[in-house]
Amino acid sequence: MASAAGTSEAAVPKDLSRAGEQAETAFMRAVLRRVPAVSGARLSDEGTETPALVFDADAVEHNCARLREVMTPFEGAVSARPHVKSHKCPALARRQLELSGGTCKGICAQKVCEAEAMAAGGVRDILLSNQVVSAPKLARLAALAASGCAVSVLVDDADQVRFASAAASSAHTTLGVLVEVDVGQRRCGVATVPEAVALAKLATAMPGLEFRGVQCYHGAAQHIRDYEARKAAIDGVAGIARACVAQLTAAGLPCATVTGGGSGTFEFEAASGAFTEVQPGSSVVWDRDYSDNLGPDGKRVGETGFRHALQVLATVISRTTALPNPRVVLDCGLKCMSGESGLPALLRVLSGKSEAASGAAAASTTQPPLKVVGLSDEHTQIELDLDDPRVVAAVAASGGGADAVAAVADEMLPKVRDRVLLAPGHCDPTCNLHDFALWARGDVVEEVMEISARSPGL
Amino acid sequence: MASAAGTSEAAVPKDLSRAGEQAETAFMRAVLRRVPAVSGARLSDEGTETPALVFDADAVEHNCARLREVMTPFEGAVSARPHVKSHKCPALARRQLELSGGTCKGICAQKVCEAEAMAAGGVRDILLSNQVVSAPKLARLAALAASGCAVSVLVDDADQVRFASAAASSAHTTLGVLVEVDVGQRRCGVATVPEAVALAKLATAMPGLEFRGVQCYHGAAQHIRDYEARKAAIDGVAGIARACVAQLTAAGLPCATVTGGGSGTFEFEAASGAFTEVQPGSSVVWDRDYSDNLGPDGKRVGETGFRHALQVLATVISRTTALPNPRVVLDCGLKCMSGESGLPALLRVLSGKSEAASGAAAASTTQPPLKVVGLSDEHTQIELDLDDPRVVAAVAASGGGADAVAAVADEMLPKVRDRVLLAPGHCDPTCNLHDFALWARGDVVEEVMEISARSPGL
Repeated sequence: MASAAGTSEAAVPKDLSRAGEQAETAFMRAVLRRVPAVSGARLSDEGTETPALVFDADAVEHNCARLREVMTPFEGAVSARPHVKSHKCPALARRQLELSGGTCKGICAQKVCEAEAMAAGGVRDILLSNQVVSAPKLARLAALAASGCAVSVLVDDADQVRFASAAASSAHTTLGVLVEVDVGQRRCGVATVPEAVALAKLATAMPGLEFRGVQCYHGAAQHIRDYEARKAAIDGVAGIARACVAQLTAAGLPCATVTGGGSGTFEFEAASGAFTEVQPGSSVVWDRDYSDNLGPDGKRVGETGFRHALQVLATVISRTTALPNPRVVLDCGLKCMSGESGLPALLRVLSGKSEAASGAAAASTTQPPLKVVGLSDEHTQIELDLDDPRVVAAVAASGGGADAVAAVADEMLPKVRDRVLLAPGHCDPTCNLHDFALWARGDVVEEVMEISARSPGL
Repeated sequence: MASAAGTSEAAVPKDLSRAGEQAETAFMRAVLRRVPAVSGARLSDEGTETPALVFDADAVEHNCARLREVMTPFEGAVSARPHVKSHKCPALARRQLELSGGTCKGICAQKVCEAEAMAAGGVRDILLSNQVVSAPKLARLAALAASGCAVSVLVDDADQVRFASAAASSAHTTLGVLVEVDVGQRRCGVATVPEAVALAKLATAMPGLEFRGVQCYHGAAQHIRDYEARKAAIDGVAGIARACVAQLTAAGLPCATVTGGGSGTFEFEAASGAFTEVQPGSSVVWDRDYSDNLGPDGKRVGETGFRHALQVLATVISRTTALPNPRVVLDCGLKCMSGESGLPALLRVLSGKSEAASGAAAASTTQPPLKVVGLSDEHTQIELDLDDPRVVAAVAASGGGADAVAAVADEMLPKVRDRVLLAPGHCDPTCNLHDFALWARGDVVEEVMEISARSPGL
């Protein structure tokens, strides 16, 4: 029966239509949404399947505590409203809200489906921090409000206000409305403060809506590396926010909420006196990119404040010790990590062979002489760093030359079936690729969490 | 009940745990895997939800016919084995095999879950063109072979051969084995021909395995822009392939299959005389990136051979006519299009307002003066091209200045709720973000197809 692929007698079956379609649908439920592990499994166990998304429990708890610490000086004046687009996981959002205590009043979601998933998961105070224009999506948002959730949405256009009013009125409910102001991102948002006032007036006049305030979010500023330049950008944002509040108040439109501030800058927004809410979504997972921002001392902030809690567990599938590129290839690529923010960082090598070896690897604090050099659809490539002093010394000690390099590479490269943990370049689109994440403490999986707000955005 | 987000009385519910988790799981089945439209809907209908993945039926059929045409001169000597990693959709794979007639003998898949999805969908001749090392994954692959599928897998390491042999033997079945040779990609693959011969010998000696041939795939060469340089790279690949066949034959190991050749180069591999199979997976969908390759005349190949059949349907959610950046913002970003290969291309503006307007837009062959300038997590930005001669002329005719620009922008930019079709930069990871695709002919959805091989790769 089992003739192999590539032989001419293995013809394509003639009837590929209905039977196949039905089998496929049944199959899809069972296999496509495969769970990488069960609670109690170990990341180093072969039964734990890769590539898997991992939330490092200790790092998440550290990050939540750190957020609370940063926000304490502003208590009573500024709340945190973490953006769940970073992880899309209702179970993690609940954990975040619980661990952050009174600091977090609710969450932001960026898509209607995310708001629905969070509400279904028990998170009931939601700012949909985006423009929603389609009638079906607005009807779903209004249904969420009608079910008892606190729901607000952004507007930057009179049509959106009318559309939202119609949806809320039809559902006999109220949608909160915040006017988005373009504070330098040049994406969504009204261009001027008078336009913001005009839209706030319209929202106040329309049935089914309650004007709540303004959003002044500058996503791009979060990635300005230089500390003073990043701070200066947010000083400008805060100035616009203050002008909005003043002109709205003058027009008899009290502005209860000024929201904004992503993970790369939220400490500035919180300290500005202009904001009532900040939205540091990535603070719980910490994108690799944010570690490249510079602190007031001109040094990389790295993981000094927040840690890389979002990780990808992968397996070595191929290995070459020979020059010119002694390397290993992992079973993870763009299907499980987004690539537009560059390569992932290597966090740790686990041995798949034994618990003892894994423990030793876990205890090691020295980064091995390896560098991530490639990321393609299904593969990540990690090379031996031939310039690393440890490699140079070991090669010299083995007599130099290609054979010595191969011997050193054989010693220093992980083996086929070994595992590694990576920090992906960008958390948000990475989480969007996964149906499940493993909540793991050290090597042990404590819980399997669903990324149930994963979706193209329907 | 419906207090709005951002108010202090809207507290986080205290018990966020069990009830929420259960509701979330039930919810996820119903909503997360939302279908963007039903058969018979129109892409321009508001009931068709965005962002949605679209297979343009006419373009797919054109591309399948074109593949057949390209392969005809090599009939009997070289087969096509399209790589389904490009689209991950069993229904499209079936369509492809049917439309390509005898040209296609089977498919390639890159992950075990893809092979399983394709087999469940009725495609039964599968080359798993990757290294598989974990025992559970190899057991699944062997189960597929035991169920009657023709299954082959790649090896580049003695351990992999032993692992595959153990899995096939346990399942009382046979796995085909091909040795992957590194032909310049510097990723997987043995480095030298003698190593390939040694692995082929080992595979021949091990129970449960059948040595089938070699894979000589050079993915990177597909993106060499210059025609002669691209061809020269594949000449080098073919030379290595010929050396493999000669040395294997000399060692008494007949090499039935030489496979490789992706969409950017497969015409060279097919014509080389060294290959028995080519793997042009993207030929059915045609990545935007391949259009930038240069033909023998030094000009972009564009869509002269294959067309951009994979498209993303999106809605305008925000619009600004004022300087400095008259623009619209779409409801699609990195959650529905991969970003590591750059920005998507604008294919066509649809009006959401009426069928008549949509028909007019469809009939227009002139590209509007718009350019895609930004792609972020949830947004794509399209600006009015202020340097386009049509814009320059219209602004001058309106008297010039900012007000004239705003008037021209108001005329030329799509409206909020209008729709556009985009060609994403890279098909493979884009399809991986979607649960469904709309098979659409012109504006009409003929069928909803499941992307059931979408997965991080578990």
